[in-house]
Order: sequence, then structure tokens, then C-alpha cells
Amino acid sequence: MKELEERVLNDSKIIDNDIIKVASFLNHQIDVALIEKLAAHIKTHFNRPVTKVLTIEASGIAIGYAVARVYGNLPLVFAKKQSSKLTVDSVYTAKVHSFTKGNDYMATIDKSFLSKDDKVLIVDDFLAAGGASMGLVDLCKEAGAEVVGVAVAVEKNFQGGRKRLEQLGIKVYSGANILRFEDNKPIF
Amino acid sequence: MKELEERVLNDSKIIDNDIIKVASFLNHQIDVALIEKLAAHIKTHFNRPVTKVLTIEASGIAIGYAVARVYGNLPLVFAKKQSSKLTVDSVYTAKVHSFTKGNDYMATIDKSFLSKDDKVLIVDDFLAAGGASMGLVDLCKEAGAEVVGVAVAVEKNFQGGRKRLEQLGIKVYSGANILRFEDNKPIF
Repeated sequence: MKELEERVLNDSKIIDNDIIKVASFLNHQIDVALIEKLAAHIKTHFNRPVTKVLTIEASGIAIGYAVARVYGNLPLVFAKKQSSKLTVDSVYTAKVHSFTKGNDYMATIDKSFLSKDDKVLIVDDFLAAGGASMGLVDLCKEAGAEVVGVAVAVEKNFQGGRKRLEQLGIKVYSGANILRFEDNKPIF
Repeated sequence: MKELEERVLNDSKIIDNDIIKVASFLNHQIDVALIEKLAAHIKTHFNRPVTKVLTIEASGIAIGYAVARVYGNLPLVFAKKQSSKLTVDSVYTAKVHSFTKGNDYMATIDKSFLSKDDKVLIVDDFLAAGGASMGLVDLCKEAGAEVVGVAVAVEKNFQGGRKRLEQLGIKVYSGANILRFEDNKPIF
């Protein structure tokens, strides 16, 4: 999506050819017009039946909401992050490794919000090493739900998340696919 | 808003005439059609110029996004919650007391996302004692921004948050205004 790539090029901060900050339009202040266009792109890309949109708190929620709306007001479920390993029987649980923060956390969903009848589109702001997305895929598997695909705003392709997902047969869409950084500039 | 009141009546869990859980349509699974209607109500209620919608992670983001969109794709800013009291010069900071959890946290916003020229509509899922909303008002004050009002989905009126805000001259809207609980049922 050209407009998102241009936005990443012009308005992100890249540090040490590794970390990218998109706080001004994606995960602190949100450019609603841009996210609306992204959601429309995502719907065009995954032109298949979807019953539910799944994301994870907090930065995935705005994009998840926009996507759920353009699919005709589907339910949006956001997984919760828990540092504790104490879980209860009423939730599905997946361990997520955050490569960015170097720690693990648990992603959980109340069992009543995901079932074997669901066709789930997973949505998030970022795909890097794929920790969060793989966790959401695990939650769907636990529920017996079908994963229609994973759609993200920005992908750091070189960190391997897409490869991990595609090896499981999962389709991936990103609005801006960063192949690498050079001199703290993104190369699409 | 009749439809939201009915939803609260039929789909929430109320415990000990005190705690209300709305996970099935508001803050874990989100009923997008319902939030769209709520956002339209909020726009009708605050029929004044707004330049920015402000909320706080995580449960406020979906409603904030919907409101920002119906106001014509305004920027949505969500404050971040930090347990640490260590802050940096580049952010506005407000201490928030969570009456529900009985603890304090810091709400922060990058200074570049709020200015004295902004007319801010504060949006959240809940208004109870008003801790989070007052914190967001404090962040606006710090930035010199004007607060147009506070709009929430569900209000627990008897916990005094509305009173605190109105004493500061701030207009408050709630989609479902719970005056009290009786036998674990909401009275509007």
C-alpha cells in the first residue's frame, strides 16, 4: 500500500537499522484516515468469508476495529496480555515470546469468544519475528477455529515472522513490507 | 442510548451489586455495530468543533477509534499506562488512581501529540469514580488543550466520576448511565 509505505518512509524513526517507531500515526497517535484505507486494502486482499477479527491489546485494537467494520461489523476480539502464568480453565492461553522486549508473556482469550465454527482474520500493527501473531494462531488452534490469514500494517520482513507463518500454510498481508533497513531508511 | 442499556441489562455480569463485567460486547469481545451506533450518539451529543479524540489503553481504543472516524477521521491519541514513576521530559504525565484495582499508575502522552490549539473529546469505555477520565483531563490541562467533554459507553453514576468532572465544568455523556445496582441488576 503505497500511502502507508510513504508514511513509514517520512514519519517513522529508525534507530540502529533495527528499531522502528511509528508513534505519530500507528501506535500512540493513530491516523484514522490511513487506517481506514488500510482496512479496505486488507478486505480486498482476503476476499474470503470471515466470522471474527482477532487482535491483541493494545496497538492492534484500532486496526482490528477498522477491519471488523469494513467486513460488515464483525465481532472484534482482542487477546489480553498477562505476565502471570496463572490461568483459569475458562480461557485459551498461548505463550508469546517478545523478541523486541526479550521476555515471554501469556496471551489469553475467554473461551466463549472463539469456537470451531469461527473463520478468523488475525490483525495487528506489526509483524516482525512473529511472536504475537504465532500466539494468536495458537489460540485459534486451541479453539479449533480456522485462520483465514494474518494482516498487519507494517512488516519487518527480515525478522522472519512471515516465513514462520507461511510455513504453517497461513496467508500474510502487510500494508508496508520492509525488506531491510539501510542507513536508517526502510527498503520496501 | 436504549440499545446499549438493553445490552448492559441482558449481557453483563454484575457481582455483589458492585462489579460489572461487559466482556462479551465492550472490553474483550467488541460488538462493532453497537459501538458504531454509540459513536454516532456521541457526535450528536457533542455538536461542537473537536480536533482530536483522546483515550487510554486498552479498552478505550475501539470506542475512541469509532468516535474519531464519525467526526471525520480525526486523529486518535491513546495515553499509555506506566507503572513506573520514571518519566521523561518529552511526555505529559498524570497520576491516575484506579479505584477498581486500588493502585496508582501514570498516564502519559508524548508532548508532540497534544497542544494548546487542540479541542479534545475524551472517550473511554467506563466512567466510575473517574480516575482515568480525570487523568486524561489533567493531561489536556498540562498541554493547555481545551476539553470539549468526556464520553463513555457505560457509567456507574453512583461512584461519583460524573460529579467530579462536572465540578470542573466538564460536560459528560454516557451511553448507559447506571444509577445503582439492585439484586445485581442495573437501574438506569
